[in-house]
Amino acid sequence: MTRLFNDPSAFAEDAKAGFCDAFAAYVVDVPGGVVRRRRTRAGKVAVVVGGGSGHYPAFAGIVGPGYADGAVMGNVFTSPSAAEAAAVGRAASGGAGVLLTTGNYAGDVLNFGLAVERLEAEGIPARYVAVTDDVASVGKGADGRRRGIAGDVPVFKCASAAAEEGMSLDEVVRVAEKTNERTRTLGVAFGGCTLPGAEGPLFTVPEGRMSVGLGIHGEAGIEEVDLPSAAELARTLVEGVLGDAPEGVGVEGARVTALLNGLGNTKYEELFVVWKDVARLLGERGLVVVEPEVGELVTSLDMAGCSLTLTWLDEELERLWAAPADTPAYRKGRLVQGAQEAEDADGEDGSAGAVRSDDEAAADAEAPPLSAGPADEGSRAAGAVVADALAAIADRMAQAEDELGRIDAVAGDGDHGRGMVRGSAAARDAARAAVDAGAGAGTVLQAAGDEWAARAGGTSGVLWGELLGALARRVGDDAAPDAAAVAAGVRAGYERLGELGGAKPGDKTMLDALGPFCDALDTGVAEGQRLREAWARAADRAARAADETKDLTPKVGRARPLAERSKGTPDAGAVSLGMVAQVVAGVLADR
Amino acid sequence: MTRLFNDPSAFAEDAKAGFCDAFAAYVVDVPGGVVRRRRTRAGKVAVVVGGGSGHYPAFAGIVGPGYADGAVMGNVFTSPSAAEAAAVGRAASGGAGVLLTTGNYAGDVLNFGLAVERLEAEGIPARYVAVTDDVASVGKGADGRRRGIAGDVPVFKCASAAAEEGMSLDEVVRVAEKTNERTRTLGVAFGGCTLPGAEGPLFTVPEGRMSVGLGIHGEAGIEEVDLPSAAELARTLVEGVLGDAPEGVGVEGARVTALLNGLGNTKYEELFVVWKDVARLLGERGLVVVEPEVGELVTSLDMAGCSLTLTWLDEELERLWAAPADTPAYRKGRLVQGAQEAEDADGEDGSAGAVRSDDEAAADAEAPPLSAGPADEGSRAAGAVVADALAAIADRMAQAEDELGRIDAVAGDGDHGRGMVRGSAAARDAARAAVDAGAGAGTVLQAAGDEWAARAGGTSGVLWGELLGALARRVGDDAAPDAAAVAAGVRAGYERLGELGGAKPGDKTMLDALGPFCDALDTGVAEGQRLREAWARAADRAARAADETKDLTPKVGRARPLAERSKGTPDAGAVSLGMVAQVVAGVLADR
Repeated sequence: MTRLFNDPSAFAEDAKAGFCDAFAAYVVDVPGGVVRRRRTRAGKVAVVVGGGSGHYPAFAGIVGPGYADGAVMGNVFTSPSAAEAAAVGRAASGGAGVLLTTGNYAGDVLNFGLAVERLEAEGIPARYVAVTDDVASVGKGADGRRRGIAGDVPVFKCASAAAEEGMSLDEVVRVAEKTNERTRTLGVAFGGCTLPGAEGPLFTVPEGRMSVGLGIHGEAGIEEVDLPSAAELARTLVEGVLGDAPEGVGVEGARVTALLNGLGNTKYEELFVVWKDVARLLGERGLVVVEPEVGELVTSLDMAGCSLTLTWLDEELERLWAAPADTPAYRKGRLVQGAQEAEDADGEDGSAGAVRSDDEAAADAEAPPLSAGPADEGSRAAGAVVADALAAIADRMAQAEDELGRIDAVAGDGDHGRGMVRGSAAARDAARAAVDAGAGAGTVLQAAGDEWAARAGGTSGVLWGELLGALARRVGDDAAPDAAAVAAGVRAGYERLGELGGAKPGDKTMLDALGPFCDALDTGVAEGQRLREAWARAADRAARAADETKDLTPKVGRARPLAERSKGTPDAGAVSLGMVAQVVAGVLADR
Repeated sequence: MTRLFNDPSAFAEDAKAGFCDAFAAYVVDVPGGVVRRRRTRAGKVAVVVGGGSGHYPAFAGIVGPGYADGAVMGNVFTSPSAAEAAAVGRAASGGAGVLLTTGNYAGDVLNFGLAVERLEAEGIPARYVAVTDDVASVGKGADGRRRGIAGDVPVFKCASAAAEEGMSLDEVVRVAEKTNERTRTLGVAFGGCTLPGAEGPLFTVPEGRMSVGLGIHGEAGIEEVDLPSAAELARTLVEGVLGDAPEGVGVEGARVTALLNGLGNTKYEELFVVWKDVARLLGERGLVVVEPEVGELVTSLDMAGCSLTLTWLDEELERLWAAPADTPAYRKGRLVQGAQEAEDADGEDGSAGAVRSDDEAAADAEAPPLSAGPADEGSRAAGAVVADALAAIADRMAQAEDELGRIDAVAGDGDHGRGMVRGSAAARDAARAAVDAGAGAGTVLQAAGDEWAARAGGTSGVLWGELLGALARRVGDDAAPDAAAVAAGVRAGYERLGELGGAKPGDKTMLDALGPFCDALDTGVAEGQRLREAWARAADRAARAADETKDLTPKVGRARPLAERSKGTPDAGAVSLGMVAQVVAGVLADR
């Protein structure tokens, strides 16, 4: 709902004043609207757009070089008057005529039509074009009576670019009409909006429902259905628009531009989720999409909903659509001339500054391998053991999830079990994939640690990732790791965790189990035990130490009531570490 | 709330895929985020920004020339992992080092810090800077522990521009830290947001209340108060930020840039309304605002709220802030080179293509006067009579509002009385102002008609505006109008209304009173009567004709049930026309 205003009846006026202040470099306030700060240059047709307010960036947000010369701004959802439209047209005129253009609404048609007469009477050649892109408003065959919605954007843009190229008023009108004939939009709505100061919403859509074709001011739509998934919505929009494709332009192989427009409360990330499927569906139908736009282009205050617009391009419209524009809210074309030229000079294939393919970019992101050449045979065998161990860990954690959750809930937020399950499962999958790709033990551990950290969420995931990462670096890919390398790796992990978490022994953290584990492992290795024996004894020690954490007090920083409450309960992180150590001991014993 | 998704757990991933498709010319998908389509040019420091998803255009929307080289993209409101941050850093690196920078959140600090270590270990010089602009999160004096919110924008922008200029990694870090030290933000929230697929909102603010300093993920704020007016909110924001101005930069005379950022559900028009007062208050405090931004820069899904950010500029930061940038969602700098150059060549003062002042633009919008020179004395005297008549009309309509509303409600929407009151009152004020400015009768009528049309709303306002306008053109400003001119003017108005509305005599509209009025007026004038006599007889005829409309059937196009229902009731538009005619007769009689 609209919450911020002073006198509700002055809302549009106040918004205009703020807009003109913020974008004073682009626009200047005139009675009834805004015009470009620079006068339209002599001989250029002026394009004046408009309609009611409440649709920003439409219409004032697109006034500037390459786009509109002026915008007429009515009250919220209300047509401006003829006098206002004429005043803006007059101020925008550069002597070569003025195109006035709006969406097709009765009030706009009436008032802008009257403004054309006034300008003509004053000796300013003027014409009017109404945009009629909304396929839901009137059936096929009566296209000229349809409402105008987000199709305003391509029509206004192509007409403006035609004017910028120096076309005559007749030619600019021809371009506007051609763009309109080739533009179709279907919109959906999930919720209405509230006018400034109004008691209730202007219109509503029931919770969990979607209205197909509801107009941007609440005008009647086609039907009401259950709220679909993003992919289902994409199909509804694509089929609705393509089912109404203009005569003679075709679908397969056609070049179109596409706009996925948010109405205010349907946000960018949601639009991108929908766009993913829209792009796929358009591709499947054989359409080539040129310079699409996904974002808020024509809003209705904070209405929830979105629309898909397609404009079938020909050579002329593609050139005009792609032409640069520089306005408060819509900019198109190459900006950073200096930097771009430097990059162009640099840019041979594969070098700095060059355009890169998706595959090249992925390669750029790849971590350098732990060994220079292919992994050693013994290290690869050890990697397979690591993958088996991680599979066993993931099983154990899935089984222990509830128990770990209960322990953690005594003094924490109870999500330790969930995090360990997610992290270990991701690590298992990453390890298996690395083994399948021929990786050595170090790379397998690194991949597993990275995924654990990425998927577990929270700090314990990061700590497990770092623990596996430290082990990975000691183990490497160049040789089958011996017991000493493993012990040194776990010790390095222990020290790393101390640095990162800032915890000390006795603070009631996983370190209180990991420390005794490291000590026992080092001792066994120093005594000449094989890894499986040393690990088994160390794992028993870790499990005991985990249990003993029930006598400890949580580390400084936790709130006192939590510290009190945790008396008699072991630390969940220490317990899970003990479990992991014991599972790994079992895997090693089976070799 | 977030409504559009497929698998909620894949929301961020799906959004990323759609984003990368829509903006493939700018960005390329890499594990953990996106980087520029063009490799960072050799020798340029790479700036990598990031954090959780859900904040678009932050952070992927600002990747491109002049701004970030890459963005790390975590799950919604969740830090990316160290491996992800390192992967994006690696892909962004141009060999001269990488600055990783995020808002100051524990998860980001931990993971991006680890990523710096990884990159350094691989031989890629890397540094990390956390943005700490949120004055509400921690008290003054502990600035370094504050959260980062919309202050990300100026810090990332200035650091990126510094890198684009060729500064070394140390210098880019210096610029980022300086910008951060000079940046302060205060935010307010009116409503929370819902994570994709979640049962309820992540956090809420009670209806009609405002939380000051609530974090963008629902972190605790300073206080909760009643929802203020836009002007009161502007004061809260400006005082909050200025009250925490950085040491040593001053307020009076300081140059700042300002960002008024919408969080998702607080829309553009509302932000402009608030900005109007923010700009005024900053001006009153003596601050000079340079290239402000008002819009959605750092959102939180569809959270309701906004924030004000100020960055105190020095010469270096002002240059870096103003430097061009070209990214999917943020573009800055001069674009339309050809058109701009043509305008520059054109642009002498006062000519086509020239930059114009507010006053010059207002003059450009002004309608040409009805007479070439100053208005004739007799015409001015007649203008005063017109103004008196309009004052009497406004009185009569105020008195008749309820009656006209009741008549209109029988077969219409009952707003005719309200529209006549609003229109006639606006016309009265415009006529009086025109008389005071020395206008002749034609100009007084034109001004009154324009305001009637602009303020009455609906079609009847437009028709009254046109009626007065047609009369204005016949009457002119060059001579005291005689009876014949007035009769011809009203007749021209009658014909104009027939053209515009498409109604014919007998359709039960105001024309059914206006037609007989014109006939009677013409007859009287032809018989040589003075205007007041002819008008009085015509007014009586109009009133009778209005009453007789109760026997007519509404014009074609109204629904049949309404036509039936209106039997026996006169047309409201005809009745009000009869009233106006009689009021004017009274004014003329008093002369």
